[in-house]
Amino acid sequence: MRGQDDRQAYDRGTSLFSPDGRLYQVEYAREAVKRGGASVGVRATDGVVLVAERRIRSSLLEARSIEKLHQIDEHNGVASAGHVADARQLVEEARQTAQIEQLSYDQPITPEQLTGEVSEHVQEYTQAGHTRPFGAALLVGGYVDGTPQLFETDPSGTSYEWQATAIGGNSDEIEETLESEYDPEISLDAASSLAVSVLTEEEEDDPETVAVAVIDDDGYRTLDREEIEDLL
Amino acid sequence: MRGQDDRQAYDRGTSLFSPDGRLYQVEYAREAVKRGGASVGVRATDGVVLVAERRIRSSLLEARSIEKLHQIDEHNGVASAGHVADARQLVEEARQTAQIEQLSYDQPITPEQLTGEVSEHVQEYTQAGHTRPFGAALLVGGYVDGTPQLFETDPSGTSYEWQATAIGGNSDEIEETLESEYDPEISLDAASSLAVSVLTEEEEDDPETVAVAVIDDDGYRTLDREEIEDLL
Amino acid sequence: MRGQDDRQAYDRGTSLFSPDGRLYQVEYAREAVKRGGASVGVRATDGVVLVAERRIRSSLLEARSIEKLHQIDEHNGVASAGHVADARQLVEEARQTAQIEQLSYDQPITPEQLTGEVSEHVQEYTQAGHTRPFGAALLVGGYVDGTPQLFETDPSGTSYEWQATAIGGNSDEIEETLESEYDPEISLDAASSLAVSVLTEEEEDDPETVAVAVIDDDGYRTLDREEIEDLL
Amino acid sequence: MRGQDDRQAYDRGTSLFSPDGRLYQVEYAREAVKRGGASVGVRATDGVVLVAERRIRSSLLEARSIEKLHQIDEHNGVASAGHVADARQLVEEARQTAQIEQLSYDQPITPEQLTGEVSEHVQEYTQAGHTRPFGAALLVGGYVDGTPQLFETDPSGTSYEWQATAIGGNSDEIEETLESEYDPEISLDAASSLAVSVLTEEEEDDPETVAVAVIDDDGYRTLDREEIEDLL
Amino acid sequence: MRGQDDRQAYDRGTSLFSPDGRLYQVEYAREAVKRGGASVGVRATDGVVLVAERRIRSSLLEARSIEKLHQIDEHNGVASAGHVADARQLVEEARQTAQIEQLSYDQPITPEQLTGEVSEHVQEYTQAGHTRPFGAALLVGGYVDGTPQLFETDPSGTSYEWQATAIGGNSDEIEETLESEYDPEISLDAASSLAVSVLTEEEEDDPETVAVAVIDDDGYRTLDREEIEDLL
Amino acid sequence: MRGQDDRQAYDRGTSLFSPDGRLYQVEYAREAVKRGGASVGVRATDGVVLVAERRIRSSLLEARSIEKLHQIDEHNGVASAGHVADARQLVEEARQTAQIEQLSYDQPITPEQLTGEVSEHVQEYTQAGHTRPFGAALLVGGYVDGTPQLFETDPSGTSYEWQATAIGGNSDEIEETLESEYDPEISLDAASSLAVSVLTEEEEDDPETVAVAVIDDDGYRTLDREEIEDLL
Amino acid sequence: MRGQDDRQAYDRGTSLFSPDGRLYQVEYAREAVKRGGASVGVRATDGVVLVAERRIRSSLLEARSIEKLHQIDEHNGVASAGHVADARQLVEEARQTAQIEQLSYDQPITPEQLTGEVSEHVQEYTQAGHTRPFGAALLVGGYVDGTPQLFETDPSGTSYEWQATAIGGNSDEIEETLESEYDPEISLDAASSLAVSVLTEEEEDDPETVAVAVIDDDGYRTLDREEIEDLL
Repeated sequence: MRGQDDRQAYDRGTSLFSPDGRLYQVEYAREAVKRGGASVGVRATDGVVLVAERRIRSSLLEARSIEKLHQIDEHNGVASAGHVADARQLVEEARQTAQIEQLSYDQPITPEQLTGEVSEHVQEYTQAGHTRPFGAALLVGGYVDGTPQLFETDPSGTSYEWQATAIGGNSDEIEETLESEYDPEISLDAASSLAVSVLTEEEEDDPETVAVAVIDDDGYRTLDREEIEDLL
Repeated sequence: MRGQDDRQAYDRGTSLFSPDGRLYQVEYAREAVKRGGASVGVRATDGVVLVAERRIRSSLLEARSIEKLHQIDEHNGVASAGHVADARQLVEEARQTAQIEQLSYDQPITPEQLTGEVSEHVQEYTQAGHTRPFGAALLVGGYVDGTPQLFETDPSGTSYEWQATAIGGNSDEIEETLESEYDPEISLDAASSLAVSVLTEEEEDDPETVAVAVIDDDGYRTLDREEIEDLL
Repeated sequence: MRGQDDRQAYDRGTSLFSPDGRLYQVEYAREAVKRGGASVGVRATDGVVLVAERRIRSSLLEARSIEKLHQIDEHNGVASAGHVADARQLVEEARQTAQIEQLSYDQPITPEQLTGEVSEHVQEYTQAGHTRPFGAALLVGGYVDGTPQLFETDPSGTSYEWQATAIGGNSDEIEETLESEYDPEISLDAASSLAVSVLTEEEEDDPETVAVAVIDDDGYRTLDREEIEDLL
Repeated sequence: MRGQDDRQAYDRGTSLFSPDGRLYQVEYAREAVKRGGASVGVRATDGVVLVAERRIRSSLLEARSIEKLHQIDEHNGVASAGHVADARQLVEEARQTAQIEQLSYDQPITPEQLTGEVSEHVQEYTQAGHTRPFGAALLVGGYVDGTPQLFETDPSGTSYEWQATAIGGNSDEIEETLESEYDPEISLDAASSLAVSVLTEEEEDDPETVAVAVIDDDGYRTLDREEIEDLL
Repeated sequence: MRGQDDRQAYDRGTSLFSPDGRLYQVEYAREAVKRGGASVGVRATDGVVLVAERRIRSSLLEARSIEKLHQIDEHNGVASAGHVADARQLVEEARQTAQIEQLSYDQPITPEQLTGEVSEHVQEYTQAGHTRPFGAALLVGGYVDGTPQLFETDPSGTSYEWQATAIGGNSDEIEETLESEYDPEISLDAASSLAVSVLTEEEEDDPETVAVAVIDDDGYRTLDREEIEDLL
Repeated sequence: MRGQDDRQAYDRGTSLFSPDGRLYQVEYAREAVKRGGASVGVRATDGVVLVAERRIRSSLLEARSIEKLHQIDEHNGVASAGHVADARQLVEEARQTAQIEQLSYDQPITPEQLTGEVSEHVQEYTQAGHTRPFGAALLVGGYVDGTPQLFETDPSGTSYEWQATAIGGNSDEIEETLESEYDPEISLDAASSLAVSVLTEEEEDDPETVAVAVIDDDGYRTLDREEIEDLL
Repeated sequence: MRGQDDRQAYDRGTSLFSPDGRLYQVEYAREAVKRGGASVGVRATDGVVLVAERRIRSSLLEARSIEKLHQIDEHNGVASAGHVADARQLVEEARQTAQIEQLSYDQPITPEQLTGEVSEHVQEYTQAGHTRPFGAALLVGGYVDGTPQLFETDPSGTSYEWQATAIGGNSDEIEETLESEYDPEISLDAASSLAVSVLTEEEEDDPETVAVAVIDDDGYRTLDREEIEDLL
């Protein structure tokens, strides 16, 4: 009981460290990320694939409207997990950042720069007193200057670069599978199959249950139903 | 008792996550939406119909003044549910957004864009520290460039696209009926009948108890008493 | 006791929903409205009448100074109930709104527009964190372009249009009487008699205990003592 | 005990209504008004008299410095009661308001306008979150365009017009006396005698214990010791 | 115990009245004034004298640096009591006020005006929510246009005019002595002796233990050691 | 238990001192620094080396993305420890500071100036009320005008200059080793070996587990895998 | 226990007085000053000497970086005690103040003016609601226009002028020694010896354990190791 009471003393303000140096509100925001469906990203030699789980609660719901894949600009895309409305704010932040970079320097923003800017924005919400952290994580995939890149930003505002990873519900299990099956020399087609398979593993193979976007030399593109079926 | 006390530790500030990653104030705002009458939207091949329940507490009340249907611009309308004054603020926000889009780009805003902008506004009220979420949900129906669309925004600031759906009191039961009776090839007339019937099901067939708006190639239009009677 | 304690957990901040989606501070503000004297409004075919109860606590008090009838512009008037100083702020807000409309568009504001603007102002005080709701309700009566209209705005910021209604102490009983006695084809003279009678019902027929204003084709006008006596 | 605890739940923030619609901080500010000496105002046919009690705690204190009578402009004066420093702020507010009116419209402000402006200022301090109400009440007496007027503003920001009244300690008893002795056709001289007598009733007739100001066709003027003695 | 608990409910915010209309934080600030040494002011026919106690805690301390006498301008001086750093802020406020008056109107500010401005500043710190009252009181002595004046401002922001008075520790006892010994026709020299004697009464007659300033036709001047010795 | 309760009274606001003059939130932020991997800096006669531990939790993670070494400008680098997102904000602050100095004075900023500016920024977050301290420490190494310098800034905003030191987890043990092995006349190559060895002591000698940057006459440079292997 | 609880009621906000007129947060900040090493200042006839204790926790730490002596301008220096990062902010404040004075009036600021300005800044942090006091004290020594001066500013924002004094840990004991050994006619050399000896009394005579700065006709200058050895 004591431990419970002690924790409650520090977890009700984003501006507070606990005695052992933890930020509980940030950790709870990570729980919010785990509550939603998973998203997966895999970097191939010739591009990046982003796949997001679709949890369609009604046959009348247009699946595309709850999709967690978002084009940021011609060369970058995002897959989100966690609190949907929070993720949308970060996607808008990312789009504006990309647009400003393009306008300012007349060159596309790299996934690394994009993730860095968004992560700083996310961090600020963990330190200011009158707000809460974002309850969402993003995978940022991009292909700029012939280089495919895959990044993650989490609710603390930390960014990571991955060869392949997953965010959201079940992400730990999916990451284990990716670690054993990923090959750095993988092609974008094989990467797409891998990403879809790790996400649908435990579900029936219904192309409607996932959304897929690839970013390669031709830019950002979402796959249609037939293309997804080919991957299953 | 413990569970009760624990919850109370996290539900009295919009800027707080609970240890399991939930935002209680947003969930309570969803309860506010459920407290009011229901609104229904159905998308047909040639338009969208919005229907709202009227709970007339006095014979001296002008029914139109408590109507939950609002024209946004020539091509878009909104049906609301929940806290009436909160909904009105969102409707004003939507109108201004539509007007700015029209003035800036000289073309009508689509329901999708409109819902996106309003949803971002709603999300901000769930993250800032000195305010509360909006206790209202909206159905946004529109017909732009020959495309009928139906969207929902909820108190978390999440948006969904629907073929047909309901918000407010009893919305779960209404959605079940819609799922079994909706046909994607439905005409606007049939959609109007369907929407009215699912809402009035348990009440006597009084045209005064519902308000109906259709948005099609001719724009936004509310039905008069005789037209509603024809639908019953 | 539990229920009492639970409620107290949510009713001490305007920015908080209770678990069942209620805004307690707004409900308490409605209680503030009930604490004062009643005001009545009746819409006739040729105008609107507003009548307010006068509770004169001293023979030395100038009755007109505690009157709850206020002219807004040439064509609109307000009857208030509840916290007097809060009502005065709303009346000032209404006057400025009317003046701005007149100056901007060179046409008088309608009661509907006026009530809408004031209601939005009232709603904002229910959502911001560092203030309280207004403890006052208004009846807005007006006659613009040959159309008489009667509106109400309450502490939540919701507006209603009425044929006839009452706000403040005893308003429920008065509304019941109005429902049984109101006739939509009523003339302004008959409406004035009705409004005065429902308010003075239980008191001696003293013209000093009520204030009466009529708004018709000739604009806003308050009745003098003899005119009120004729209505008794 | 329960009642005590319940009240304490609502009386420690100016932005809170209690469940029965009361604003406790405003009521406590009214208590602050009662803690000080009384002030009396009486309207005559040809002017207004303001009288304030002087509680001289030391023979070395200059009585005029604790006087609660203040000239606002040539035609208006104020008698205050309650928290002295709060009253002074309101007097300054009144002076500035009068000056602005004079400069803007080149005509003197009436007591009614003056009281209205000050009352709005007072109300705002009862609704904003980071301040407290003013612990002072004012009597505003003036003589503009041949019309004598006497107003009161209280800590809630409500204003009243009076023929004669009292504020501050013992004001209820004084008002009773005024009600029985006041005659609307009273002359300023008789009004002055009445005002002084109701205030000094229970004290020895020492001209030092009261301050007297009259406002009539010749403007605002304070009486000297001999003039006060003549009134006793 | 109950009383203790009740008081604690209201004394921890400057923006709160207690149920009986008191402002506890202001009363506690008055205690802060009582904690320091006393200062005395005496008005003579030809000037004003200010005397402040010096509590020299170390022989290495330069007595002048802890002096509580401050020249404001050529014609006004201040003696302070209470929290030293708070007093210094008020002295700076006074100096700026005097300078602005001089620059704006090309005439010296009177002690009365000066005290009024400073008192308003002090009052504001008792009403705003995010600050505390000043824990200091001032005696303002001045000689302008041939008129000597002595004022006091206290932590509530109230000002008083005195013939002679004391602030700070032991001020009640000193005031009693002053009341019995003060003569309105006193000369500045006699006033100086009186002021010094009431302050040093209980201490050995060490000229180092007091600081003395006189303000007369020649302006503000502090006395040197010999001059003080002459007064003992 | 008492001690525990007492501490909790003061550790939940950055703006509070405990009775013994401690700032608990700053101390907890130091714990956050200890929770991460260690970073080491060693100053040689001809440059500075910074080495950071890499904790690679997955084989799919790009090690460079979690590196805690950051180039600030041509002549300065930073090694961080603690909360990663907080550190990144400080690195950005450092970069902007360096850029502004370069632009303003057309000369590179020294490590001392750089650390001073960042430390002031860090201190402000320990004193303001609506934020929390930074949960990160930095080592700043630079080589400007032929002078190598190594500084540290900690969560309190204090800066230190070192010959060699460590921050983060295990830093106390590493510092002990450095104290016994450091020689002020050490060359950059030897310093690099020393820094790597103290960090990898308890781990297998895997060049992937550390990142190394040197700053010397040629500016800032990170070592590649082979160069690190040579140091092991 | 009661006393403990009572104190805790008032010591957790800088904007609160306790019932006996104390500011606990300021008193706790004074404790923070006592937690660090001591600094000593001695005024001689021909200059001022400042000496600060060095607590070197590691042989690798550059002693000069933790020095508590800071040059402010050519003619003024500061020795600090207490929270190091807080002291640094005050030093920066002092430097800017000196620079502005120099630029505005083309003459050096005196130690008295400098201390006054810094003290006002410090006081403001004891009165505003959203911050904490500075946990640092300063000794300000200067030599302007042939006059040596030594001042202290403490966490309350009070300033004192001294012939000789100490701040920080053990300062009470050091002050006692200074009182018995100080001679107003002391030369700067003798003052330097005195200052060093009182600080190192209980430690071995290691010149590394103290830092010494003198300010005389030639301006501010720190002593090197040999010069300090000569003083031991």
